[in-house]
This record gives sequence, structure tokens and C-alpha cells, in this order.
Amino acid sequence: MGSIFTKIINGEIPSYKIAEDDNCFAFLDINPNAKGHTLCVPKKEVDKITDMEEADYLELMAFSRKVGKAIEASIDCKRVGITVIGLEVPHVHVHLIPLNKMAEATFTTKVDLSPEEFQEIASKIRSKLK
Amino acid sequence: MGSIFTKIINGEIPSYKIAEDDNCFAFLDINPNAKGHTLCVPKKEVDKITDMEEADYLELMAFSRKVGKAIEASIDCKRVGITVIGLEVPHVHVHLIPLNKMAEATFTTKVDLSPEEFQEIASKIRSKLK
Repeated sequence: MGSIFTKIINGEIPSYKIAEDDNCFAFLDINPNAKGHTLCVPKKEVDKITDMEEADYLELMAFSRKVGKAIEASIDCKRVGITVIGLEVPHVHVHLIPLNKMAEATFTTKVDLSPEEFQEIASKIRSKLK
Repeated sequence: MGSIFTKIINGEIPSYKIAEDDNCFAFLDINPNAKGHTLCVPKKEVDKITDMEEADYLELMAFSRKVGKAIEASIDCKRVGITVIGLEVPHVHVHLIPLNKMAEATFTTKVDLSPEEFQEIASKIRSKLK
């Protein structure tokens, strides 16, 4: 009985995958604030980010930085915002949100995308990953 | 001509200080989403978080984790949210927000506090810093 993110990591639920390493996984948010909105999660299921071991937390933040730089290089935006809330899914997730306006950072606007658009966005971001 | 945060770090603008080390500074947000809302900033003025050197960025995130744990230990909340937006002040700042409800994470609610309340909150958080 893993979290929804564990199911995504394990491939039980499909996702538009962006990146993966030994301990972290990144995929497109399916209900995005903006085109390119991505979630970075640790493979180890921990509820609160402050409960992660420091080394695991820093690894997740370094991974998120790398993905964030690829988003900035591939998606038209002023910058990439970073948000960790976690009141809904009890598995740490770092939102990386390409920002052009404040509403995209505050979860007060959403965009509808087709599967083809999600695939195209994921492919663009992946092409900029170093 | 430093940013408003550089002026706070240099003491030209007063703040309710939480913590400081060689490269980072933490103080209470003066327009808080919730009691205990804190900003962590690097002393070196950089606009976008993705433009920070990786080592500086990881140092800021480790510093923010430490302050976040002190907030969780001193302020009544379900967890501490982390948000980096930066569309307004071009000097990296990590929002640490004690969360009880979603609106506090989305900047759609604010609390009014007196100088005495700010002082009391800062003192409580500082007392839990390790």
C-alpha cells in the first residue's frame, strides 16, 4: 500500500517521466499550475520534508535544482518557483513551477493539457537535462 | 544600493531576526501568511535560485531545514511549507510557512501581528534552534 507517488515510481500508475536516479524521481504534475509544472519526489516514502534525513533532503534538493534548470532552459518562463506543501499526499514532493505570473505560484490557476502536449513538454524538458 | 533583504541583513532596516551564519540570514516575514512565517536569504545577492552556485544553494537549503525544524518545534502547525517564488524581490528568499490549512501555503490569507507578538514568536523559534 504505497502512496500514489510510490505507485507512479513503480510504474503501477503511468506518468510523464522527466528524470530518475537512485533515490529521486521527477514527473509532470497532471493538474499543472502552468506548462512544465513538475514534481520531484524521494523514492523513500517520508511524509514531512523536515523529517527526512539531512543527506536525503539535500540529495532531493540537488536533484530538484538540476530538473529546475532543465525546465528553465526548455519552457518559456521568467523563473522556476519551488514549493513544498504536503497537506494532501503524505509523501514528500517538491513542486517545480515555471512562473510567468504570481497566480501560477499560488495554485490559483490551472491549465488543461492533452496527452500529446504533456508528452511534448516532458520531451522538451528531458532534452535539456545534463 | 542593495536589495531590501541586503538592507535587513546589514541592519539598515530592522527585522525580527531568527538566525544568522556566515552566508545565510533568517528573519520573520513582516506580512505573514501565518504566525511564524520566516524568510531565509543568502547574504550574497542573487536574483534566481537556479542561478546560485550548487554549494551556495545547498547551504541555503540546509540552513532553511534547520530553521524549519525550529519553527515546527515552537509554532502550532501541521507542518512547515517551503516556497521560493521571487517575482517581486530580486534576491533569493525561501519562505518557511507553518501550515494548518492550504490558504496559508498559497498566500491567499494574511495575519496581523503586533510588534510584541512578532518579538514573542521570534524568541520562541530562536529558543528551539540547535
